[in-house]
Amino acid sequence: MNLHEYDVVVIGSGPGGFSAAVRAAQIGAKVAIIERLFIGGTCLNCGCIPTKFLWKSLKVKKEIQGSYRYGIKSILEPIVFENIINKKNKNITSIRSGMKIILSSYNINIFEGSAIFKNKNVLIISNNEKNEKFEIYADKIIIASGTKPLIKNGFTFDGVRIINSTDALNLKKIPKNMLIIGGGVVGIEMATIFSGFGCHVTLVERANFLLPNEDYEISEEISKNLSRQGIEVITACTNAFDDIGEYEKILIAIGRVPNDGLNLRDLGINITDSGFIKTNEFCQTNISNIYSVGDITGKNLLAYSAQHEGVVAAENIIKGNKFSISNFAIPQVIFAMPQSASVKVLDFEKYKNVIFGKFPFASSGRAFIENERTGFVKCGIDKLTKKPLAFWIIGAYSDEIINTASQILKSGMGHISRETMFHPSFSESLLNAYEDAFGKCVDVIKK
Amino acid sequence: MNLHEYDVVVIGSGPGGFSAAVRAAQIGAKVAIIERLFIGGTCLNCGCIPTKFLWKSLKVKKEIQGSYRYGIKSILEPIVFENIINKKNKNITSIRSGMKIILSSYNINIFEGSAIFKNKNVLIISNNEKNEKFEIYADKIIIASGTKPLIKNGFTFDGVRIINSTDALNLKKIPKNMLIIGGGVVGIEMATIFSGFGCHVTLVERANFLLPNEDYEISEEISKNLSRQGIEVITACTNAFDDIGEYEKILIAIGRVPNDGLNLRDLGINITDSGFIKTNEFCQTNISNIYSVGDITGKNLLAYSAQHEGVVAAENIIKGNKFSISNFAIPQVIFAMPQSASVKVLDFEKYKNVIFGKFPFASSGRAFIENERTGFVKCGIDKLTKKPLAFWIIGAYSDEIINTASQILKSGMGHISRETMFHPSFSESLLNAYEDAFGKCVDVIKK
Repeated sequence: MNLHEYDVVVIGSGPGGFSAAVRAAQIGAKVAIIERLFIGGTCLNCGCIPTKFLWKSLKVKKEIQGSYRYGIKSILEPIVFENIINKKNKNITSIRSGMKIILSSYNINIFEGSAIFKNKNVLIISNNEKNEKFEIYADKIIIASGTKPLIKNGFTFDGVRIINSTDALNLKKIPKNMLIIGGGVVGIEMATIFSGFGCHVTLVERANFLLPNEDYEISEEISKNLSRQGIEVITACTNAFDDIGEYEKILIAIGRVPNDGLNLRDLGINITDSGFIKTNEFCQTNISNIYSVGDITGKNLLAYSAQHEGVVAAENIIKGNKFSISNFAIPQVIFAMPQSASVKVLDFEKYKNVIFGKFPFASSGRAFIENERTGFVKCGIDKLTKKPLAFWIIGAYSDEIINTASQILKSGMGHISRETMFHPSFSESLLNAYEDAFGKCVDVIKK
Repeated sequence: MNLHEYDVVVIGSGPGGFSAAVRAAQIGAKVAIIERLFIGGTCLNCGCIPTKFLWKSLKVKKEIQGSYRYGIKSILEPIVFENIINKKNKNITSIRSGMKIILSSYNINIFEGSAIFKNKNVLIISNNEKNEKFEIYADKIIIASGTKPLIKNGFTFDGVRIINSTDALNLKKIPKNMLIIGGGVVGIEMATIFSGFGCHVTLVERANFLLPNEDYEISEEISKNLSRQGIEVITACTNAFDDIGEYEKILIAIGRVPNDGLNLRDLGINITDSGFIKTNEFCQTNISNIYSVGDITGKNLLAYSAQHEGVVAAENIIKGNKFSISNFAIPQVIFAMPQSASVKVLDFEKYKNVIFGKFPFASSGRAFIENERTGFVKCGIDKLTKKPLAFWIIGAYSDEIINTASQILKSGMGHISRETMFHPSFSESLLNAYEDAFGKCVDVIKK
């Protein structure tokens, strides 16, 4: 092999591409990874990680403001938002360096530049800044090229006033007011952060309620919490784009579309009308040596789904299609204040006889003393087998607790054992919600 | 039935007694509960709950001191420890009121006073303060009378200088220095809290290392963290009691012994040499209408074990012995800074061919941005079946994450699925530690 021939080339270094590249190298392949922008992709640079950093910063601010609840006096000095953004960027840069070190430890070549398919084995890589253009040969290719924010026809992201989530995460100043169009996860998280730091936020959603695909009770509770925090929530709003005159910033968060430019149509890869790559359960496209993972496949648009697919694709593309993506139970998390999370068995809608239990965090001793008394756990249970089928959580640490819920669903256990749950923890509320469905929760009053 | 005849009488209102009483009432029994001191027992009044409150207060203090890591400036005013203790007491009082409301909602009679067995169905209740003494008849009795701190022969807890954990949790001032004798969970938690608030703490342990029953690597890491926080840790110390002259406070945390005074010997209940009540797997004593749960049985001395036993005992004592205590996997948690937690399958020691994986939190994106980079997850796996058998965690939120680990062990799943773990979370480090054992973790450099 010469310098530019590889067993496996991965396009994109987000969670999907990164996992795929490392796993392929772990199996023994000679691997290269191509990145057009920044190592780490959307998740690290303009998605999960910066959002969580800003959310945590807001949490720290609130912890300082609420320290009197512990008998501790403190003074919060005026916040300079730019300092928070700078710290965020410093963290991202460190993580990015760490990822590069991992790639190098596996002798994975990193190509900085854009890729275009010449044919099913040859990619043309170009880097305008470095004035470079060259071809690489790949026996097998994994496409993990990701997505970008969708914009409404007739509008353009100018990065100044009409902005997307990537722009928002790099604002140096908290605007006086902001219109956020789109009441999905991104819109809610951005509303929480900017409102929390002092911006007057108006959040509008076209559907009749926020998160139209979520359980209605959860959607309503999140909506209530947002309003309580001073966010103006407007639902069933069909003309959001007609009246944007008065806002300092307009953040559009109405969805994401595939990154393009790979020349997929000429190559003959099957894609959907919206441009997402079609794959089978082995993460394989219609061209047998080309696999695809992560957001570009349009399936879940979740970092951990992408990681899972990346690993599976690497195993399959090298060893043959042995592992299929089963996706028994995929948690979903929203970083509002407090967080909310849900997970259900994939065929949840098929169950006819579902009973529900509920446990409020105000009744949890641990949540009570941590002053995290907002929210609840709701559990859906198959009446016949008593198996838990779904959990919805609104409350502190729900981003961690939901993983316990996933394991309970994944394991198919017919009950939850008290002695497996540390007391006093937030997680034990899962058990309380489950037992509530049978009138057996001992930590709430008799109904 | 007259006023003083009950189907089930529960002695003690800690986690075990409380759960037992409520469940018995849920089943339909006429129930009374007897409490000598405060509703909630050790857990609420001088154990789990106050410890977690003080730990969280310390965490808030540290969060304020570390807010610059998020680009947020704040000033911590001088701490008045008494204010923290007052807030703690206010929280405990609220929770206690909540528990009383729950008991009342189930028409459970609360008797404040000490109980002594007259015979296997009659208890004499006396309350000196109220100058009351009367008998109650119970068809069935559940003893959940708990434990108290052990003291060394020749010493007395004076509540001023020679103190136990109950005294420590009510100190109005942080002492200049403190000798803590006993390097178990209680000693470590007290050392963490008092040192964190400015006391010079010397922690001594008789064994060669702290937590002698814990995995050595974990014990060593906890020891290192304590030392880093300024706590003087002395192990293999056999003469701790010989030289206590110089310390302002001496906290003795060398174990717990059964509460006595119930007249158990005359009644003929089988007890151990130390006075713990012997029970079978159904929580039943040798006297068939008397069951016993929680710390007084000397088994686990854990609140959630007690809760589990309480519920099981209530079911069995009313419906016949249908449920046995299986205790497949019981998590253990220590509130040092950061927390640590572990869980293993009960027959862990029987496995001959165990391989280990490890993942440091410094390599977790989420832990990195939350500035919780200390610690790791360690996973023990059966080499043959690839089933995880044990998890040890040192790190933030390990008190929640351990519940996910418990479910993984409890379910007997042969692997852990990436898509069931939200990214970026702390919990996903369980998966990374597991995969590390096979050289398959994608988030660390090649070994």
